[in-house]
Amino acid sequence: MVKVNQNYLKLPGSYLFSEVARRIAAHSAAHPEAKIIKLSIGDVTRPLVPAVVEAMHKAVDEQGTYAGFHGYGPEQGYPFLREAIAQFDYQKRGVDIQPQEIFISDGAKSDCGNIGDIFDVDNVVAVCDPVYPVYVDTNAMAGRAGDFMPELGRWSRLVYMPCVESNGFMPEPPKEKVDIIYLCFPNNPTGSMATREQLKMWVDYANKNGSIILYDSAYEAFISDPDIPHTIFEIEGARTCAIEFRSFSKTAGFTGTRCAYTVVPMELERDGAKLNTMWNRRQTTKFNGVPYIVQRGAEAVYTPEGRRQIMESIAYYQNNAKVIREGLTAAGLECFGGVNAPYIWIKTPNGMPSWDFFDLVLAKANVATTPGVGFGPSGEGFARLTAFGDAEATKEAVERVKAIL
Amino acid sequence: MVKVNQNYLKLPGSYLFSEVARRIAAHSAAHPEAKIIKLSIGDVTRPLVPAVVEAMHKAVDEQGTYAGFHGYGPEQGYPFLREAIAQFDYQKRGVDIQPQEIFISDGAKSDCGNIGDIFDVDNVVAVCDPVYPVYVDTNAMAGRAGDFMPELGRWSRLVYMPCVESNGFMPEPPKEKVDIIYLCFPNNPTGSMATREQLKMWVDYANKNGSIILYDSAYEAFISDPDIPHTIFEIEGARTCAIEFRSFSKTAGFTGTRCAYTVVPMELERDGAKLNTMWNRRQTTKFNGVPYIVQRGAEAVYTPEGRRQIMESIAYYQNNAKVIREGLTAAGLECFGGVNAPYIWIKTPNGMPSWDFFDLVLAKANVATTPGVGFGPSGEGFARLTAFGDAEATKEAVERVKAIL
Repeated sequence: MVKVNQNYLKLPGSYLFSEVARRIAAHSAAHPEAKIIKLSIGDVTRPLVPAVVEAMHKAVDEQGTYAGFHGYGPEQGYPFLREAIAQFDYQKRGVDIQPQEIFISDGAKSDCGNIGDIFDVDNVVAVCDPVYPVYVDTNAMAGRAGDFMPELGRWSRLVYMPCVESNGFMPEPPKEKVDIIYLCFPNNPTGSMATREQLKMWVDYANKNGSIILYDSAYEAFISDPDIPHTIFEIEGARTCAIEFRSFSKTAGFTGTRCAYTVVPMELERDGAKLNTMWNRRQTTKFNGVPYIVQRGAEAVYTPEGRRQIMESIAYYQNNAKVIREGLTAAGLECFGGVNAPYIWIKTPNGMPSWDFFDLVLAKANVATTPGVGFGPSGEGFARLTAFGDAEATKEAVERVKAIL
Repeated sequence: MVKVNQNYLKLPGSYLFSEVARRIAAHSAAHPEAKIIKLSIGDVTRPLVPAVVEAMHKAVDEQGTYAGFHGYGPEQGYPFLREAIAQFDYQKRGVDIQPQEIFISDGAKSDCGNIGDIFDVDNVVAVCDPVYPVYVDTNAMAGRAGDFMPELGRWSRLVYMPCVESNGFMPEPPKEKVDIIYLCFPNNPTGSMATREQLKMWVDYANKNGSIILYDSAYEAFISDPDIPHTIFEIEGARTCAIEFRSFSKTAGFTGTRCAYTVVPMELERDGAKLNTMWNRRQTTKFNGVPYIVQRGAEAVYTPEGRRQIMESIAYYQNNAKVIREGLTAAGLECFGGVNAPYIWIKTPNGMPSWDFFDLVLAKANVATTPGVGFGPSGEGFARLTAFGDAEATKEAVERVKAIL
């Protein structure tokens, strides 16, 4: 008799964004005339830029000819893309990352989840609280999280690092020894960022304890402050303790086009095993690469026109972040993030619970937010707003929220 | 200190196709003038058909506009594609599969590997011998295969079901009880096929023992005999014991475009858990869907023009299979498969070991094959040839092999 993975049965019912979607749908069904503006899910709204569109048309044409047809590509990605990434995202910042350390994939969500394959189930995992739910749920599925404690909203074997107002939403390394540490900067959901000194503290901790930092920098394109590091590999010592996840989703509007990459340095070893080799084995065995057409589209992001065009989109979203932050601050709400990040983390008025605030703002302003508590217990009393909407709609949403407060 | 997944360290050095590629590259480097014809890796050579190219151009254009832009899609795939598959691949054959039982993915390789996530590590797994290496390696990575025994070329905890000449390359259900059974028909690598009666025997075994059949029908488009089932769900009782994997790779030349799907029936339960719900949870947590552009391309396969165009490509490859089978049979080799399958399984002359035959044919005829032993110990003394090449090159390869025998 087949036995299922019992860890799946421990997962609490509903994934945050599904529940948000469900409540929006219910509200919409009850009020079909309501024009709901979603500042909730972090999906982009601007189209692919012309340089990417042009490159993909060209690739589609190639795929329709004998001479230009591409069948199975390298599972790790085409050299043209791995080289462009190494050059533009790393070497131009003075960071020595080589193409063979870069693995192209269909998404940072996939990679953040699948990376667990190469680690033992007994490792102790530390996550920020609040946190992107995928880090937690994928470890729970693997049996690394222990049991879910509904009254606490926590898993028994995970180490939670509170990111709260009093520490500027930046945790210190835990007192106990942990093995795997998930960090994400610019942070989802709090919009906080890590300075060089703060990251150095983490890298030193990891190297001292033999830990590994899983560094999610999916939002690095939103960093405008020249002193904030874009990659953990700007920090000395990171090559022996860190894996970095990057994505074209928010950088170039690829949420529906699917391309990302993961960097595993050659020096990174544990138990005498090279993690680059292990991840390579995982990807060559369980993955067959990203569509040729999509890789050509991603490559175009690194051309001068592509770069200029995506920077325009990013500036547009950065302005949305400013509109939300300044508008809601003027309305008397405390707002965090939204400067070097596309997320604004707002404190609900008078300590109102997150879901109550969600329901209130949806019912009265027809604006969807994401409840902070959905990202972890320390997110209670907060809401996450995103800057990826249409500029006019974002302005209107801010006005509507202001009006009801 | 981080502990790595020790199961990875048990994997034998080199993945079959990497070793084949390495030897071809070495031969090519030593003989730069040699025109090598590859009948080895099962990659298609014909371009995407016009209907697919047109649909993808249209989708690329949409992605470049505000109104037509698609960001995150449903992780399970767009309804338009799930509905087309349910209708054309199942309901038109009288098989009741509903869209919500179909999960669109980036590849059958990914799904065959990732499906293990939802099963306990203690299940006993049965595989055919010879077999597609991904089934074995992904179970080894998960710790379900035990230890590798190099002298036997086998893993200690897997149950091997020999597929040999004496049983027509069709195993009987094992005497012992096994939990998870991988079956692939039309078979890779032997090119054998399963009759309705044979599949019924497997379905009955699985339902009796609470086993699950993981049925890979990636090559169903090559079935020309009207009595051979295209899907395991043509068999009564399969909805309570089977999961099916399908792909556009060989059907529509999508090896470099990446689209596949997995069917998990609603009735399928074990340990009181619904496997459709578990797989849905896996995919929504660790995957973010297939590119919109690619799903539109796959949808076009189901239009009348798309269907007609891909059937032309399949007929072309079927003819290659005939050329190989008839040519090498005439040259005195015993050939199996290649009738309802794109693979031809040939017996090496005088019991020559597979890798010796590989080296001989590469050195003397500049033709690359895949050594049968690479698919498992019972593949020793065989070679796999594929029908996915250019027709002229395939003819020439057959002539060259004939000449050296």
